[in-house]
Amino acid sequence: MSFERMWRDLTPVGRDQHSGGYFRQPWTSAETELRVWFAEEASARGLDLETDGIGNLVAWWDPAGSGRRSGLLTGSHLDSVLDGGAYDGPLGVVSAFAALDLMRSRGDAVSTPIGIGVFVEEEGSRFGIACLGSRLATGTMTWSSAQELRDRDGVWLPDALADAGLDPSRGFVDLSGVTAFVELHVEQGRDLVDRGAAVGVASEIWPHGRYRFDFHGEANHAGTTRMEDRRDPMLTYAMTALAANKQARVAGQRATFGRVEVTPNGTNAVPSHLVAWLDARGDSEASLAALVGEIERQGVDRAGRDGTHLTVTPESVSGAVHFDSDLAARIAADHEGGAWPVIPTQAGHDAGVLSAVGVPTAMLFVRNPTGVSHSPDESADTADCLAGVDALADTLARLAR
Amino acid sequence: MSFERMWRDLTPVGRDQHSGGYFRQPWTSAETELRVWFAEEASARGLDLETDGIGNLVAWWDPAGSGRRSGLLTGSHLDSVLDGGAYDGPLGVVSAFAALDLMRSRGDAVSTPIGIGVFVEEEGSRFGIACLGSRLATGTMTWSSAQELRDRDGVWLPDALADAGLDPSRGFVDLSGVTAFVELHVEQGRDLVDRGAAVGVASEIWPHGRYRFDFHGEANHAGTTRMEDRRDPMLTYAMTALAANKQARVAGQRATFGRVEVTPNGTNAVPSHLVAWLDARGDSEASLAALVGEIERQGVDRAGRDGTHLTVTPESVSGAVHFDSDLAARIAADHEGGAWPVIPTQAGHDAGVLSAVGVPTAMLFVRNPTGVSHSPDESADTADCLAGVDALADTLARLAR
Repeated sequence: MSFERMWRDLTPVGRDQHSGGYFRQPWTSAETELRVWFAEEASARGLDLETDGIGNLVAWWDPAGSGRRSGLLTGSHLDSVLDGGAYDGPLGVVSAFAALDLMRSRGDAVSTPIGIGVFVEEEGSRFGIACLGSRLATGTMTWSSAQELRDRDGVWLPDALADAGLDPSRGFVDLSGVTAFVELHVEQGRDLVDRGAAVGVASEIWPHGRYRFDFHGEANHAGTTRMEDRRDPMLTYAMTALAANKQARVAGQRATFGRVEVTPNGTNAVPSHLVAWLDARGDSEASLAALVGEIERQGVDRAGRDGTHLTVTPESVSGAVHFDSDLAARIAADHEGGAWPVIPTQAGHDAGVLSAVGVPTAMLFVRNPTGVSHSPDESADTADCLAGVDALADTLARLAR
Repeated sequence: MSFERMWRDLTPVGRDQHSGGYFRQPWTSAETELRVWFAEEASARGLDLETDGIGNLVAWWDPAGSGRRSGLLTGSHLDSVLDGGAYDGPLGVVSAFAALDLMRSRGDAVSTPIGIGVFVEEEGSRFGIACLGSRLATGTMTWSSAQELRDRDGVWLPDALADAGLDPSRGFVDLSGVTAFVELHVEQGRDLVDRGAAVGVASEIWPHGRYRFDFHGEANHAGTTRMEDRRDPMLTYAMTALAANKQARVAGQRATFGRVEVTPNGTNAVPSHLVAWLDARGDSEASLAALVGEIERQGVDRAGRDGTHLTVTPESVSGAVHFDSDLAARIAADHEGGAWPVIPTQAGHDAGVLSAVGVPTAMLFVRNPTGVSHSPDESADTADCLAGVDALADTLARLAR
């Protein structure tokens, strides 16, 4: 079975021996190895490989010999968060190749080209903007703003691309002829576990955003400075992090501080400055704005008491994405064994970016027994993955007829 | 005036243009420049420079021609915390040279050699052990344990020394013949401001320690993981940091979390692990133990509620240091213009390490108008610094007669 062989090939790439997690940041050696693997899989199947100036890839299958690089699109991404799981991204790419193999072996009638896409820097783990590749390809973000991005080591995006042998002046993959996009993804929660279903279909993506919280205080000696003389931004941050958690619980939304940078970060110094990034998600744009506003209000209030100063800067905010409901209903209903559940997700995806520019878009989810994601513990049973391949092949076959 | 010339020479070394603070970590280029400066000052005065295998330095003045490298010791350190102030350390070294110049110009009778010492890695800002140089020189710490130290970039101490051209197999400066140690230091609080005194004398150093807090949780997706399904170590840490501050306030002690390392430290990932270092100081060993114990108890209690796990490891704990009270009383009383105040300090110093091994030890403090230390804002008025030089010269002259 081609799925299992491909999965074995990918397992060691970018894997940390200690944690078992993956470090597949864009334009690093691990990610380059994945891109070479993708090109080889495409070549082995006689597909036409489209590349671009930032590292997006589309392998086109054109059984009708149209010569076009447009039509139905599937695929996902190959990059990971820092110390991430094996499934988030690669499952959709491997499943796309496996679905193509299945359609060929069944002799499915295919009248339109089908592209297997890989969008780069989907996680935003290196340059801080999630879905960077698909944003550039759809024009949602311009190169003139992207070229100002720097990673956490201070490397500029244009330099990172040049080091990887990429030339952004070549432009980006042309998605204007895409008739529909279907992305398969491991589920990142427990909805399908609770429903006892191997496969589900996405209804929507929650509005979500990243917000930079800058806490300014005054550096001082940790031993000699009286507690009442301090202006310690660590305290303001700590209270804000607890408030974010509490507000999200109360409101039924999501709020996380997972990244913190402290200056000078010395054991015996009260910090002068602390930056923390809030990841927030809400079931509507109004609830997201209310959640972030309340967290900021509580942080500013505490800053007043601590003698510190807080500023909040939204770095990327995405509105709600409602996937094509007709398409979702057709995919969910029209197959053997009864309907698949149609469920929302709180995670951003390239599918959300394409949907936002008017491409009819659908997502398939594969059950995740633990619900854990963005972690070495992320997993999926092989039987469920193969059910996902079947579902993707059936969906593509129906759309490509 | 030699003090002001020397102070001007040091001002630019290791100074960050942006913050105005100092980065003078041991065995870096900035610190090497300071050591060269020290050797040149010693040479210009015809002093006998003693070096050792880790970078400690003593410049001996031997006007009686005894040929000994032992006697009365003064000096301080030249390294800084990350983004530290100009005065913490260098003020004591520059004042020692200036006091020597003053004693020479007055023709003071000096019957014993006087050494001006520089102890390396006093702040512990690179390898995490404060007073590393004086601990090795006094035998309080052995080289076999020190050689296991790594800095935050993973560099082993032996490799850092080799890169700096140092060879620890040469051993460390021999302090066995030191009859007394007098360290001048900028005050790191407001005691002298409140008392209206330019100079003070130390009575004791509070017990203090560094404790590593390891918070273990479970990495997960920040968007899709329900708040109630998380095991987020950031929350346990935040509550512990607030508890530390509150306990220190209530008990009249000091507790600070100034350094944090988060894994994986990604915006859209619930962390799997967070390490934070507690700096704690108490007015007695019992109160320090009670303070740290209570912070740990509250952290462990919260970890139980968060589904996380906390372990606490003491990294370095120093007992109370009571300086030679006869010496302090003599220094404080026996000079023009009335008695200087005798005050405690909460900061660790090389003087504490020497005192703990039985060297009669005294510290002089110079008033700090803001009380701020370990920060670019640390300062002292030149007039107060010169009063400190006078006080040091008088003290040394009395002890060296």
